[in-house]
Amino acid sequence: MTPAERAEAAYDRVEAADRPEIWIHLRPREEVLAEAAGIDPGLPLAGLVVAVKDNIDVAGLPTTAGAPSYAYRPDADAPAVARLRAAGALVLGKTNLDQFATGLVGTRSPYGAVRNAWDPARISGGSSSGSAVAVALGIADLALGTDTAGSGRVPAALNGVVGVKPTKGLVPVSGVVPACYTLDCVTVLARDLRLARAAAEIIEGPDPADPLSRTGTQLPPPPARPRVAVPAEENLHGMADGWREAFAAAVTCLASTGVEIVEVDVTPLLEAAQLLYGGAFVAERYAAVGDHLDKHRDLIGTDLDPTVAAIILAGREKTAVDWAADTARLAALGAAARTALDGCAALLTPTTTWHPTLEEVAADPVGANARMGRFTNFANLLDYASLAVPAGFVDGLPFGVMLTGPAFSDRALAALAERFANPGLELFVVGAHLTGQPLNAQLVQAGGTLVGPARTAARYRLHALATRPLKPGLVRTAEGGAGIEGEIWRLPAAGFGALTAAVPAPMAIGTVELADGGRISGFLVEPYAVENAPDITGFGGWRAYLASL
Amino acid sequence: MTPAERAEAAYDRVEAADRPEIWIHLRPREEVLAEAAGIDPGLPLAGLVVAVKDNIDVAGLPTTAGAPSYAYRPDADAPAVARLRAAGALVLGKTNLDQFATGLVGTRSPYGAVRNAWDPARISGGSSSGSAVAVALGIADLALGTDTAGSGRVPAALNGVVGVKPTKGLVPVSGVVPACYTLDCVTVLARDLRLARAAAEIIEGPDPADPLSRTGTQLPPPPARPRVAVPAEENLHGMADGWREAFAAAVTCLASTGVEIVEVDVTPLLEAAQLLYGGAFVAERYAAVGDHLDKHRDLIGTDLDPTVAAIILAGREKTAVDWAADTARLAALGAAARTALDGCAALLTPTTTWHPTLEEVAADPVGANARMGRFTNFANLLDYASLAVPAGFVDGLPFGVMLTGPAFSDRALAALAERFANPGLELFVVGAHLTGQPLNAQLVQAGGTLVGPARTAARYRLHALATRPLKPGLVRTAEGGAGIEGEIWRLPAAGFGALTAAVPAPMAIGTVELADGGRISGFLVEPYAVENAPDITGFGGWRAYLASL
Repeated sequence: MTPAERAEAAYDRVEAADRPEIWIHLRPREEVLAEAAGIDPGLPLAGLVVAVKDNIDVAGLPTTAGAPSYAYRPDADAPAVARLRAAGALVLGKTNLDQFATGLVGTRSPYGAVRNAWDPARISGGSSSGSAVAVALGIADLALGTDTAGSGRVPAALNGVVGVKPTKGLVPVSGVVPACYTLDCVTVLARDLRLARAAAEIIEGPDPADPLSRTGTQLPPPPARPRVAVPAEENLHGMADGWREAFAAAVTCLASTGVEIVEVDVTPLLEAAQLLYGGAFVAERYAAVGDHLDKHRDLIGTDLDPTVAAIILAGREKTAVDWAADTARLAALGAAARTALDGCAALLTPTTTWHPTLEEVAADPVGANARMGRFTNFANLLDYASLAVPAGFVDGLPFGVMLTGPAFSDRALAALAERFANPGLELFVVGAHLTGQPLNAQLVQAGGTLVGPARTAARYRLHALATRPLKPGLVRTAEGGAGIEGEIWRLPAAGFGALTAAVPAPMAIGTVELADGGRISGFLVEPYAVENAPDITGFGGWRAYLASL
Repeated sequence: MTPAERAEAAYDRVEAADRPEIWIHLRPREEVLAEAAGIDPGLPLAGLVVAVKDNIDVAGLPTTAGAPSYAYRPDADAPAVARLRAAGALVLGKTNLDQFATGLVGTRSPYGAVRNAWDPARISGGSSSGSAVAVALGIADLALGTDTAGSGRVPAALNGVVGVKPTKGLVPVSGVVPACYTLDCVTVLARDLRLARAAAEIIEGPDPADPLSRTGTQLPPPPARPRVAVPAEENLHGMADGWREAFAAAVTCLASTGVEIVEVDVTPLLEAAQLLYGGAFVAERYAAVGDHLDKHRDLIGTDLDPTVAAIILAGREKTAVDWAADTARLAALGAAARTALDGCAALLTPTTTWHPTLEEVAADPVGANARMGRFTNFANLLDYASLAVPAGFVDGLPFGVMLTGPAFSDRALAALAERFANPGLELFVVGAHLTGQPLNAQLVQAGGTLVGPARTAARYRLHALATRPLKPGLVRTAEGGAGIEGEIWRLPAAGFGALTAAVPAPMAIGTVELADGGRISGFLVEPYAVENAPDITGFGGWRAYLASL
């Protein structure tokens, strides 16, 4: 598709979706089409359509932060926007949000509650509500959000898209209306993890105009068999029906890719999470927009959301001594969490704990919201990177999980998340592909990793073939036979395919039954090749036979 | 000296010095002597005598933080103390300080004002007042201090000793009474830079009990010709008489070692410095000990220092919104300073700006103190490492300078500071020691660095000697002669000595007059060797002669 075709399709989707509350400002179709005509098709994001949360500046469009009275018209794009545009992306418009990015629900906006992409009776999650729904409904390829408490991740989860929350400071916050100035991150939402990460890497980079901008070396990629922490049972109370089971399935999926799962009591993180709104740090919200609220008290209930206003104005009541005490408490909790997570490449959690209806949130705006941030609120306070990815469905609605790791683990988290999308295929080997044997390098070159030793069910015979290099042939027998020692390897699907295509006769890839009753792809042999081949079943495996030679 | 002899000498010095105000608690001589008897003489600090600031726990001795009413008796040594003891050091006692480490003067203590080691009418500087004076008077080999605003560096400067303020978090603050919990550092004072650094490296290291403990990789050592920033003229207003000149001399000294000096306007740092007491961060002091002051209002003026109490109690008046605003302001100032100092290995400043008398401080306790911290107050706020070293005298009193650099530049700062202690000796070479010539490696192995090319005065003749390798002989003539090309190298004194001792006949090291009129050590030759040696003066230098062969 050309950039112009992409733009046309996006506007068609806007109309078909009929979700006007997504947008605070939608650019005129003709304007975007004209811009599309000038895009260099060789650019990495050429013609990809971007929705921008309306607390991030786009030159010439008003920035409202969800409050009409607050609107200003910036002269320049925020760096995140400018960098996407320089890479060929087309800005479609500015999206609705929980006012002043204060909320995880997507309903706190005079521009209307943003309905969920999958079920309009439910919330979209917030505060990057319009951005997430625009992506989930296929209107935008990419969207920019922001994330202080979880605003880039919770709506990603509830709408079944990917939400990348980079390490704090990697993406400049110049041209962004602050929520908590020292904690804010610009985030990327997309349907596809790789696109989301590509966009995140495009918008990262230093900005002399942003005092909090920082650079750092990304941590190395996780090892072949990384350790990932999951919350202990007691940390998972009060989840929505079916969500614990969905999370358990995600854990099983990750474990099946060779990840070692360790249960960790993450109480220190959950306590830190409560400091974001429960402590003195909320004063940063007052420092950001409190003057505006003070000056426009008369607009509370109309232009200004009363729940948001109450939260922000309460920030004024906290003392600097409260702040000092909360800072010390946060340091202690952070250190406890570091100790608990020592040796783990990341923490895997549900992204949020439930998915309320619009009605449930209206009935208890603060209480409902508080349940959303249990696993997200601590990340920026404790300087973690985080990545929310879809992980199936519960009752027909998206369920999401999150990988959270130390600052500058962004790429490592993405590599772990890839395992959900592409957990790999397992292959059972019994001969020349075993570790240390002549063809083992083929597995490694195909991206394979050793899962571990295994043994066939006691229904196989092994023959020594007259091949070069020497290979055994594994044959299932109708009766008799024995368990044969081998190894399970995991390969990316592409590598598995290439390897299979290259297997020479008389070898074949078929199904092998293991001693534990499981079935797995594995090397078999055509029967003609074993007719005169010595039966070496009695050795119990290829290595034992080779040792006898 | 054995540990016992060292301990005996320390107690003798205590008596001879007659400065009882140094000590809040001096251990009984017999107790320390008994401990000395058990010390393994192979330990790195075996028998070195340590004075510990009385806001740092020593097991069994009361910790007062300078307030008798606050005293408690800890069961365990602070890690910094425990690590020194494990390395063989002997704790002599606990030293006086500005109460609750709140002050840079050394007079704010009910245990008495600590008088300067060099002039008892003047202040010691603080808050690590007793520790600095104990070291300066030769009582203790080492002392522990703390440093939030400059408490480990200002008294070092005023008493002519070295003060090492490590990167925040490198030395645990467990067992230390907090001043500003997130900003405090444990420091080392010593008369000798290398001993101070050795002790600092011994007390560094993670501590699971300290949430703010952190580890990190030290930055690489500075290059042979590093760039060092110095404050612009306008940043140096209001210095004591003669101090600007003393600082200029220190700058010249550093420049003479091959350091490139760049003038930088450090206004952002000086503004950040003012936030430490002028902003909301002082609330951390209230969070630390405010309850104690509130409960003992009746003791203000006796047990509790009225100036200290007023500062700490004022911390309660600041709001969390003030804190948020100050944090944002600090981030902006830090970013501006980073930009200004980009490319510099360190910032060289005077350590403080004047050296008042006890009387001057008594007349204006807050104003006098404020002048002390101009160049120290910002370091911990902006996460710098810093190192104060003596740099000569003004009117018979010590003058000190400070090297300040980014977090984890501790070792790099020490390497720069070594240049003051040992700026090296210059040597003029004209032949086989020139860059690229056969004996040049001798200079490099001796620790030499090339200063640059130079030429002799026009009073020399050059002869080609019959040596292996080929060498020229430089001879001063009574009349005629020419300027001969050569190079100036700088060598550490020890390397210079070793090289000279190894020079074979007929070569010698003498004095060479340069074209600019300067005199420098350089290679000469014994006259007998040039009697029949061809005169190659006309080539103007050894390289031109070699090129003609």
